[in-house]
Order: sequence, then C-alpha cells, then structure tokens
Amino acid sequence: MESEFIAWLRGRVPPHPQLVVGPGDDAAVVQLGPAGRCVVTVDLLTDGVDFELESVQPRRVGHKALAVSLSDLAAMAAKPLAAFVAVALPRHGGKQLAREIYEGMAALAARYSTTIAGGDTNTWDGRLVISVTAIGEVTPRGPLLRSGAKPGDRIIVTGDFGGSILGKHLDFEPRVNEALVLNERYELHAGIDCSDGLSLDLSRVARESGCGAAIELAGVPISAAAYEKGTGVDFGHQVVDRTGGLEAANDSRPLFNALGDGEDFELILAVPPGDAARMLAEQPLAPLQITDIGHFIAEPGLWQTMPGGSRRPLEPRGWEHGLD
Amino acid sequence: MESEFIAWLRGRVPPHPQLVVGPGDDAAVVQLGPAGRCVVTVDLLTDGVDFELESVQPRRVGHKALAVSLSDLAAMAAKPLAAFVAVALPRHGGKQLAREIYEGMAALAARYSTTIAGGDTNTWDGRLVISVTAIGEVTPRGPLLRSGAKPGDRIIVTGDFGGSILGKHLDFEPRVNEALVLNERYELHAGIDCSDGLSLDLSRVARESGCGAAIELAGVPISAAAYEKGTGVDFGHQVVDRTGGLEAANDSRPLFNALGDGEDFELILAVPPGDAARMLAEQPLAPLQITDIGHFIAEPGLWQTMPGGSRRPLEPRGWEHGLD
Repeated sequence: MESEFIAWLRGRVPPHPQLVVGPGDDAAVVQLGPAGRCVVTVDLLTDGVDFELESVQPRRVGHKALAVSLSDLAAMAAKPLAAFVAVALPRHGGKQLAREIYEGMAALAARYSTTIAGGDTNTWDGRLVISVTAIGEVTPRGPLLRSGAKPGDRIIVTGDFGGSILGKHLDFEPRVNEALVLNERYELHAGIDCSDGLSLDLSRVARESGCGAAIELAGVPISAAAYEKGTGVDFGHQVVDRTGGLEAANDSRPLFNALGDGEDFELILAVPPGDAARMLAEQPLAPLQITDIGHFIAEPGLWQTMPGGSRRPLEPRGWEHGLD
Repeated sequence: MESEFIAWLRGRVPPHPQLVVGPGDDAAVVQLGPAGRCVVTVDLLTDGVDFELESVQPRRVGHKALAVSLSDLAAMAAKPLAAFVAVALPRHGGKQLAREIYEGMAALAARYSTTIAGGDTNTWDGRLVISVTAIGEVTPRGPLLRSGAKPGDRIIVTGDFGGSILGKHLDFEPRVNEALVLNERYELHAGIDCSDGLSLDLSRVARESGCGAAIELAGVPISAAAYEKGTGVDFGHQVVDRTGGLEAANDSRPLFNALGDGEDFELILAVPPGDAARMLAEQPLAPLQITDIGHFIAEPGLWQTMPGGSRRPLEPRGWEHGLD
C-alpha cells in the first residue's frame, strides 16, 4: 500500500477492540472470539459493470463495495468484524478517488463496528476496480448456510424486490442487524442474500438443500422501483436490464422485475412453519416488512403455486456471472 | 461467483481440516486454532503492472498472485491457512484463463496446506485483475511486526537480491517455511518481506521501529540476475526498471539493482546479536543462505557503513506505490 495513503488511513481508522495489528504492517491481526470461527467473503466490483464512475459519486461506490460484502456476512448470520480493501485506481486523480471511496465505506463500517483493517492501493491504466474482503464471526448459533432448507419450511423474505438499478443497488443497507435479530429469535434453516435475482437465488437455496421451492407469485413484495422501472419512464440515467432476455406482458413486468432484477440485497430465508408464523405475527424488523412468499417442497426445481394449489415450473431468472 | 466455475472449483479444492464451509455458500467459514488470532493480508495484481499477460502463462500469474500474499504472511511469521481469490477477467477466454490461474495457485497452495476457500469471478471489458486475500494464524510466539527492531539488532536477510524482473518476480517461492523455522528457533525482533526494494523495505522497518539502519554494502548478497540485468543483455523479453531514476556507475549497477529492484520476496529481519551469530553459524535454511548486512542504530534514517566505520546517508530506493 502506498505510504502516504497508509498514513492518511491510519489517522482515520478508529481503534477497534479486536484489531491487534492494523494498517501499515505486512498483514493485519484480528482477534476472534472464543469460538475462533472466521467467516470470510470477498467481492470484486468493476467500473462499467457494478457502477458507472462517470455518473456516480465515489462515496456511493465505496458504500456499495463494502455493503455487498457485509451483505454476504448477513446471509451467514455472521457479525462483521473487519474489512480489507484492495483497489486498482485510474492513474490520474487516484488519490482523491481513494479517499472518497474510503469515506463512503467508513460511515457504513462504523455502523457495524467493522474496522477497515488493511488493503492494497494500486494505480494502473485501466478503470477502477475494488475488491473488499469482509471478515466476521458466527454467533453461538453457528453459520446460516444455503443448504439447510427442508420441505415444508416457509420462504421468508425481508423488504421488497425489483428495480434496484434505479438507485438501491448503490445505496442499500446490508441486512446485517436484521439477520442477527432473526437468527437469534427464531429457528432459521437456511439463508441467502438476494444479489442475483429473487427467483435465481431462491433456486440456489433449494438446489443446495436438495429440495425445491414453490412461490406464490401474488405474495411477492414488489418495490416501487420495480413499478417505476417497468413503466419505462426515463429517469435521466442509464437503466441496465440485468435480467437479459426476460419476456413478459407489460402488466406483469413489475413482478418480473421483482423476480429477476437482483441486487436487492434482501434476505431470503428458510424458516420452519411454526417459527415463520410467529415471525410474521411479531414482525420484529418493523417498519421493515417480513413476507411469506411460499414454501420449500421435496420435488426439486423452482415452481409457482397456482390458485387452487397446482404447480407450474418457474424459470429462475437473474444475473448469471457467465464466463466465455 | 459463477455457478459452473464454483462447481469446477468444488471438485478441485481438497478437504482441509480447518475449512468448515468451503466455496459455494455466501461466505466461507474457517476454524482457527485456540488462540483465535487471524492474520489477514490482501494484494491486488493488474495486467500491465505486475505481469504482462500477453507474454506470460496464466499459471505463472496465478502462482505469483498467491505467492505475493503468502509472502506477506511469511513476513508476519504466520502459518497460511486459506486464500480467497477475486478476479476481473477479460470478457473473452475468461473461463480458460480462470482455470489456468487457479491451477497455478493450486500447486503452491498445496505446498503450504492452504485451501482456496472462496472467491469472486467477474468478467468485464478491461484487462485481468487478481486480488488474493490470504488468511493465516500466528504461532504461539505471536506475529512478527515491522516495529520491533532495536538499536544493535543485526540486519539479517535470506537469499539474494536484484534483477527479479528477469523471472523471479513471477516464480519465487514465498519464504513461509523459512520464516516459521527462524521464528521458532531464534529470537526475531522485526521482519518484512522485500517486495518494494531492499533499501526501501529496510528503511520502513527502521522507521516503524523508531530507529535507523546502517548497511555494509559489501555484505549485500547480489543475485546473478542483478548482474545479468545490469549488463544490459537482451533477454528477449521486456525488462522494466522499477527503480526509476536510479543513477549509478556501471560497475556498481548490480549492487544498485540489489538495493532497489524489489520483488525479491526475501525476508529482512531484525535479530539480536547473539541469536544472529548463532543463526549465521548454523545456517538453518541451507542451501538457502542467510546473510548479515548490517545493524540497526539509534539514529533514524538509512545509512551505509564505510570502511573504517564512519557512516554516510543512503537513499532508500525502490517501488513506491505513488498516487496522483
């Protein structure tokens, strides 16, 4: 890391009781709790794919880069502890850019007692790349996996879905506290954060759990942005449709947006029926809504439950990170 | 991460006793030893700066990307445990490239019982970027910091220096085992891995320790590559001089290469005189040579010790990660 930037960073990283060695040495040293279980995730964001630096303030980019990784920790019901930030900065204006990115992260990090414990600052002739590694700890209840859903479990989601590209994908709050509260008060069998699309991410939980999932489409909470995006209004900024070749009648477009847009960063959970009923009645995250959108079934695949109870296959849609 | 690549990776990552949750979930879970101290480092490498993909096999790039991070763990005298690899791949040929990069890492990872526990695979219109986060554990002796050198400590280095650009910067073996052996058998006060230049990295140890360092230039172990590079022979590949505006008479050029080239990834250690003498006599890393190149002094700054014992200032030279 560049010396001057390290000095700048050292002056800004507040002390953290679990940070034994902070920025400036060859590596950081983090003290975990007695369980000694370290939850680790890394996400890499690139200019032109995950954000458009030309039209977005670097602070928002910094916020998103950290929030995406914290959201992964939330999906494991883990408590965030430290983040490590590696950047490839454009050659000109890199210092100012690095500072603004850091400041966008710092406010978010502080809210979750997460220390920016280290990183790597580089310049090059390419566009901005940010890689954030987040480290957390599991609670005594252990990590929440994708693979624990059982047939009969309810599919419970936080918040609403769709149209994230209109702004939420940059400014969302990771569901860290929500996951910790729900995991503490209720029995959760499985969880994922919705990064690639509600239907796609749900189908991943089902597949990893060796079962299927049946959605009641009428129950899917659709965001205002999913309607806005669906109407084709020009919002004065670029609207990228990450769902690819999604075809739908105009009147069901908001629902399709909700099912496939991705980057909602809401939680999708598998909850046993009793706990699900209690959770829905108690609404412990109010004003953030918790919604039941269906249930897991023994038969593999993704399904929609029709009025009357029959099922039709539903194609998982969303953002697949394809490689040529 | 892209599903098909995860599936491919899952089939290749060998089981690891401390990997509780591996690739494929929202995050990995790593079980640390009883001390629960996690050593973390991240390094980001870019095509055109740290390697030239046009002329270098992707396996060597993968090796380097992981080796650089393992070298940071070595500098802390930490035992590697897990690595997390985030890549931004060029849009075409990304899948093949990702596999070759991974295979370059896998052999190295296996040698140090390091599991590739997770990552993030992206494609974009830019050039290849690789970010590797390595996680390790400190031994009961604790982390080896940059800041522990004391006046009177000897400056001990492993191996030799200079001319790394001719090949070693891609193919070096991180001094992981060497650091563990030395830290176990001798008292070490401070350490760093030489990534940016012997004189520059040494001056960092001195600064962080609140003291100075005096080198006996005649004692600096100069690599064959430092001589080769110094003669200006055309090796049929690009030779980039990372030392910037280094000026030197032709006959001292190999020494200047050794002092400032960087990416030697050798260890630079502060060792109390008694332990240093024992270490030099025992040469516990043979055939890898351990050399004494001077000592730390109370007066800040970097110095060369002249024949007769007087001192002259020596300018730290190397690779500064400058930001505009």
